[in-house]
Amino acid sequence: MLIPVILSGGAGTRLWPVSRSAYPKPFMQMGDGQSLLYKTLDRALKITGAGGSVLTVTGRDYYFLTRDEYATHPQAQVDKLPFLLEPVGRNTAPAIVLAAMYAREQLGADATLLVLPADHLIRDLDAFAADAQRANALAQDGWLVTFGIRPTHPETGFGYIRMGAAITAHEGREIGAFVEKPDLEKAETYVASGEYVWNSGMFCFRADVLLETAQQTCPDVYAAAQLCYAQHIGSASPVEFARDAFLAQPDISIDYAIMERAAKRAVVPAQFDWSDIGSWKAMSDIAPESETDDAGNRIRGSAIVIESENCYIQGEKRLVAAVGVKNLVIIDTGDAVLVADRERAQQVKLVVEQLRASGHDAAKHHQTVHRPWGSYTVLEDAPDCKVKRLVVKPGQVLSLQLHHRRSEHWTVVSGVAKVRVGEEEFLLERNESTYIPMNTIHRLENPTDTDIALIEVQCGDYFGEDDIVRLEDRYGRVAG
Amino acid sequence: MLIPVILSGGAGTRLWPVSRSAYPKPFMQMGDGQSLLYKTLDRALKITGAGGSVLTVTGRDYYFLTRDEYATHPQAQVDKLPFLLEPVGRNTAPAIVLAAMYAREQLGADATLLVLPADHLIRDLDAFAADAQRANALAQDGWLVTFGIRPTHPETGFGYIRMGAAITAHEGREIGAFVEKPDLEKAETYVASGEYVWNSGMFCFRADVLLETAQQTCPDVYAAAQLCYAQHIGSASPVEFARDAFLAQPDISIDYAIMERAAKRAVVPAQFDWSDIGSWKAMSDIAPESETDDAGNRIRGSAIVIESENCYIQGEKRLVAAVGVKNLVIIDTGDAVLVADRERAQQVKLVVEQLRASGHDAAKHHQTVHRPWGSYTVLEDAPDCKVKRLVVKPGQVLSLQLHHRRSEHWTVVSGVAKVRVGEEEFLLERNESTYIPMNTIHRLENPTDTDIALIEVQCGDYFGEDDIVRLEDRYGRVAG
Repeated sequence: MLIPVILSGGAGTRLWPVSRSAYPKPFMQMGDGQSLLYKTLDRALKITGAGGSVLTVTGRDYYFLTRDEYATHPQAQVDKLPFLLEPVGRNTAPAIVLAAMYAREQLGADATLLVLPADHLIRDLDAFAADAQRANALAQDGWLVTFGIRPTHPETGFGYIRMGAAITAHEGREIGAFVEKPDLEKAETYVASGEYVWNSGMFCFRADVLLETAQQTCPDVYAAAQLCYAQHIGSASPVEFARDAFLAQPDISIDYAIMERAAKRAVVPAQFDWSDIGSWKAMSDIAPESETDDAGNRIRGSAIVIESENCYIQGEKRLVAAVGVKNLVIIDTGDAVLVADRERAQQVKLVVEQLRASGHDAAKHHQTVHRPWGSYTVLEDAPDCKVKRLVVKPGQVLSLQLHHRRSEHWTVVSGVAKVRVGEEEFLLERNESTYIPMNTIHRLENPTDTDIALIEVQCGDYFGEDDIVRLEDRYGRVAG
Repeated sequence: MLIPVILSGGAGTRLWPVSRSAYPKPFMQMGDGQSLLYKTLDRALKITGAGGSVLTVTGRDYYFLTRDEYATHPQAQVDKLPFLLEPVGRNTAPAIVLAAMYAREQLGADATLLVLPADHLIRDLDAFAADAQRANALAQDGWLVTFGIRPTHPETGFGYIRMGAAITAHEGREIGAFVEKPDLEKAETYVASGEYVWNSGMFCFRADVLLETAQQTCPDVYAAAQLCYAQHIGSASPVEFARDAFLAQPDISIDYAIMERAAKRAVVPAQFDWSDIGSWKAMSDIAPESETDDAGNRIRGSAIVIESENCYIQGEKRLVAAVGVKNLVIIDTGDAVLVADRERAQQVKLVVEQLRASGHDAAKHHQTVHRPWGSYTVLEDAPDCKVKRLVVKPGQVLSLQLHHRRSEHWTVVSGVAKVRVGEEEFLLERNESTYIPMNTIHRLENPTDTDIALIEVQCGDYFGEDDIVRLEDRYGRVAG
């Protein structure tokens, strides 16, 4: 029984301003409109078949977003999919050990896990499925298996695996050694030798084998995970963990904690294409030939390019013009624009560090902020008013709330909303508006099966998100 | 009697996306918040003294904008300032000959004109005033005077003037020759010789002398201007011209039509600093030392700069991040961003040409569009609605109008508006809203002495500016 485990987290700060902590890299859309997370689920369902069981380990804050993303996949039965929710982001060893504990308990001791990070891109799903079966066969024989990627260039940003002896009876190699990120010279030697592969971060092993190994290689991780798992909240999905117990687990990767110290470990050299889209340069590199002009420019969105070469331009609504420039990535979003040298795109993370240090919201939120009930987009944030576009998904309802420092004017521009203002409740149709005075309880609901959109004009002297007094909330957000 | 004549027009396409045809270069704000036009008026008033008479020649479309800009100058008596309005943009010879005809008729034959383009930057006003007096003295002796700028570098984008013999009794030189824009090698020779100055496009002459010279050097221009002037509309300011008669004038510069062919012409080598801000590179060059970081980056607005050198970044509300880049100009506006190599900033005009060829609105309008009554900013333009912020100036009133394809919801967010909807008229205060159904006549007015701002949410199936049926309009915009 091969169970895909999707590990979805990680800030992806090198892909700012599109990837931000409130809506990170797995949710980033590729050129075809699918997110990396969607593509990972698609890959998992390729292994299980339609409607199959896929375990997801993700942050509590991403639970609703992840479900919404999964729900767009025609083969996913979202309500049946198990989730483990991390109260905060932690490293891979705790996440995978907890997933193995869950699998052992809920799915049986022989459950075999196929660990898939949610932010990789693989195009050849048939080759992927074939390699997964090779890994599965090894796992059944008690091997801890990792997937190795044949290097296409002497990358210095990845760890490498030196392949050891061939494993008879299986299509795989023993792992000779894990090698830290090399310098360029070493990387060139590795690539030339043909004996090294990139460490992809994808794994396959039986849950029981992993847990037995963990008890030996990292008893502290195992013990802490056991304590944490024993205190998990709810047995049905989503499974949540107590914050303190979760944080008591060591912050350590599965490579360090288990793989590097294990005896019986193997690597399957991947037949499939792979990118971890680690930077805008990588994003630029995967742009298809068909989208590349004669000068090597790749454009997504609306752009005018004059005498420029080898640029990657990705925009949303606005127009981007490039004049006489070379080897740049230009990424335009609603509230921020990035201009970076292609070859130094890794340093984009330094921008995010500066933003965080200065408390700038653009490190965390986009102009459009996703909420369990839908999303809002700030259209205007001025001293005299704040204007938002709210989108409420079918069947969803916002908290019963009030504001002390602002009134709100709502105009429905699509769909039919159910509105409560004070003690009154009524339907508000397209082209109808209503007024919510300060200090008046109100609620917005979508009782229909299509999205509703409304424009909210806030009047007052303070428009912060912290001026929301929640009296009831379906999503557990009443302040406690 | 020295009359400054401000010539305000010109698209300034090299300064896109800040300069656009609906709000061109003279309105562009410098780092101190003053526009080039304001600074030109300031310069003119330095010559006339507070409340002095300054003649402005500008496009009809810029009349209200120009008056608004002038009105912010504490020494301007806007209601007394004469304006000549061009129905369309034309070259400098017609504009200046018409200005001279106006001056001769209204101000007397000995009126002396000091012609100042509205898009130049001069910081040292005392030196400017002193040079203007030198030019005035020459003009009184019948010279046609131009101002020559000492070259600071071998610029190939300007015409040059070879200075001739010193004029005894005056501080000026005869003009040896006008020289076309040179190549770099020639420009270097010119600069090294010390005998060449840049042709600034600023002039000084008696109206009668200019007109007599024009009759000899360009009788066609003179005759056409005479016909055009004879048909001018209204003798009080603003003076407008009939379109056909105006267009019948040759499209020729004053340099070609008059200065190059005149006998008695002089140049005053300027003692003042000068920039025509001909490109973003020039804009970058005038940024003060105090705004320049150690790596030569100059930033206006909100930006994060990582390992980047010698970049000029100008933003509005959004955040700009630059990573590992050199010698770029990055200009961010509400709906467009420009990334250009500093040294190729001239080519920005090619962007505007492409935009015009494709009918893209970003060649003409900003996200904020100025109107005689104030301005509007498009906050959202979606299939289901359009949202605008309207600002109405004190005492102003929008046209009495109706829309066939949209309803409007107005919420006042600052000030007090007077609103007519159908036959009703009422005041709408801050935090109050009203609804204007489709096909209902309505009007918005600011009866107070402070700006009002309101948020307009349009619902319908079409939101174009052409769905405005104007029934009455104070600004002459009722379709005829």
